[in-house]
Amino acid sequence: MSLIDKLQWRYATKKMDASKHVPEDKIDLILEAIRLTASSSGLQPYEVIVITNKGIRQKIRAAANDQSQIADCSHLLVFAAWDNYTAERINAAFDMTESIRNFTSESGTAYRQMLLKVYPARDAETNFTHAAKQAYIGLGTALIAAAYEQVDCTPMEGFNPSAVDDILDLPAKGLRSVILLPLGYRNADEDWLVKLKKVRRAKDQFISWIK
Amino acid sequence: MSLIDKLQWRYATKKMDASKHVPEDKIDLILEAIRLTASSSGLQPYEVIVITNKGIRQKIRAAANDQSQIADCSHLLVFAAWDNYTAERINAAFDMTESIRNFTSESGTAYRQMLLKVYPARDAETNFTHAAKQAYIGLGTALIAAAYEQVDCTPMEGFNPSAVDDILDLPAKGLRSVILLPLGYRNADEDWLVKLKKVRRAKDQFISWIK
Repeated sequence: MSLIDKLQWRYATKKMDASKHVPEDKIDLILEAIRLTASSSGLQPYEVIVITNKGIRQKIRAAANDQSQIADCSHLLVFAAWDNYTAERINAAFDMTESIRNFTSESGTAYRQMLLKVYPARDAETNFTHAAKQAYIGLGTALIAAAYEQVDCTPMEGFNPSAVDDILDLPAKGLRSVILLPLGYRNADEDWLVKLKKVRRAKDQFISWIK
Repeated sequence: MSLIDKLQWRYATKKMDASKHVPEDKIDLILEAIRLTASSSGLQPYEVIVITNKGIRQKIRAAANDQSQIADCSHLLVFAAWDNYTAERINAAFDMTESIRNFTSESGTAYRQMLLKVYPARDAETNFTHAAKQAYIGLGTALIAAAYEQVDCTPMEGFNPSAVDDILDLPAKGLRSVILLPLGYRNADEDWLVKLKKVRRAKDQFISWIK
C-alpha cells in the first residue's frame, strides 16, 4: 500500500476495538516520529504523555464529552505544551544543543540571546499558543506515522483542557493539554464513519500555483 | 531506509541547491498528503500556495530575513489559513460533505448548527489562531511526506506575515500566511547544519507513561 493509499485508509476512528492492543514497537515508532519532527527553533516546547491506565482514561473520557475511543483505544497520547517560554527552558535547550554538538558558535549564542530577549517578555498566553502550534506539528507527524503503521487514531480537540490538566497534574509541570490522540484499531462493524466517503476539498480549491 | 531513518535524515535545510528540481510527482504526493491529513471538524481551514515563480519568491525572501532557501528551493509552499470562520465557510464545508456522501443526518445537522453558533461569534483572531493550528497539522504531515520522498525542506516561521500577505494578495481571499515551506534539495557542501548532529530531548524527557 502506498503512502497515499495509507492516508486514504486513515480516518478519525469513531469506534475502536477495545480488545485489540497496538504492539509496543509500533507505538515506539509513532512516538519516535513525533520526537524527531521539527519545532520552532528546535525547542520542542511540548511533551507527550502515553496513557494505558484505565482509571485515568475513564477520568479523561468524562472530561471529553464521553468519547468512547479514550477508553477503547490501546494507547492514549496527550500532547501537552509548555505553559510559557522561560529563560530556564530556552537555556536548557541551547545548553543541550551545545553539549551534544560539543561546540558553541557566535551565531548560536546570538540566536539564544535573541530568543531570551523576545520570548520571556511576551505574555504567557502568546507563548503557550506558539508552543501549542508546535505540538500540532507533532500531531501531523503522528497521524501519518500511525497511518504508515496502519494503526488507527482520532485527533481530538473536543475536551475540557483545564479538567484534563488537573487529572494529569500538568500545572505542576508547567504544561497545558492541547490535543488527545487515541491510538488503536477500528471496530469497523460499529463505526458509522468508516463506511462513509472521505471528504476533502478538491485539489483546485485547496492548492493554487504561482508559476 | 526505514521511516525513522528518513526522519533522521531530514533536517531544516539551510542551503539548498538551486540547480536541482523536485520532480512533479513527488511534489504532488507531498501536496496530496497535506490535502488528505486531518483538520478540526474536517473544515480544512487553510490553503496551500505553491510558488515556482522567481520574482515572487525574491519578494518573499526580502520579507523573510533574506533566507536563501526561498530563492534556491525548487517549490515554495505557503500555508495560508482562513482569517476567520464565517457561516458561509462552515456551510460550504458541510454542504460539500452532504453532497459527496449524498445524505444528511440529524447528528450532522446538529453538529453544523453547533459550529455555526459557536465559531462565527468568536473574534476573528481566535478563529484565525485555531485555523492556523490546523495548518500546522498539514505542516507536520508535509514534513514526514517530504522525508519519505527524500525531498529536503525547511519550515519557516521567521517572516513578516503581513508583507507576505500583501505580496500574495491574501487579504482579498480571506487568508493570512502562517508558515513557509521551501522544498528542494540540500547543497551539502555549503550547508553548515547538515554536518551537525540532530538534537532532540532524550525520550524520557519528552515522553512519559502512565500505566
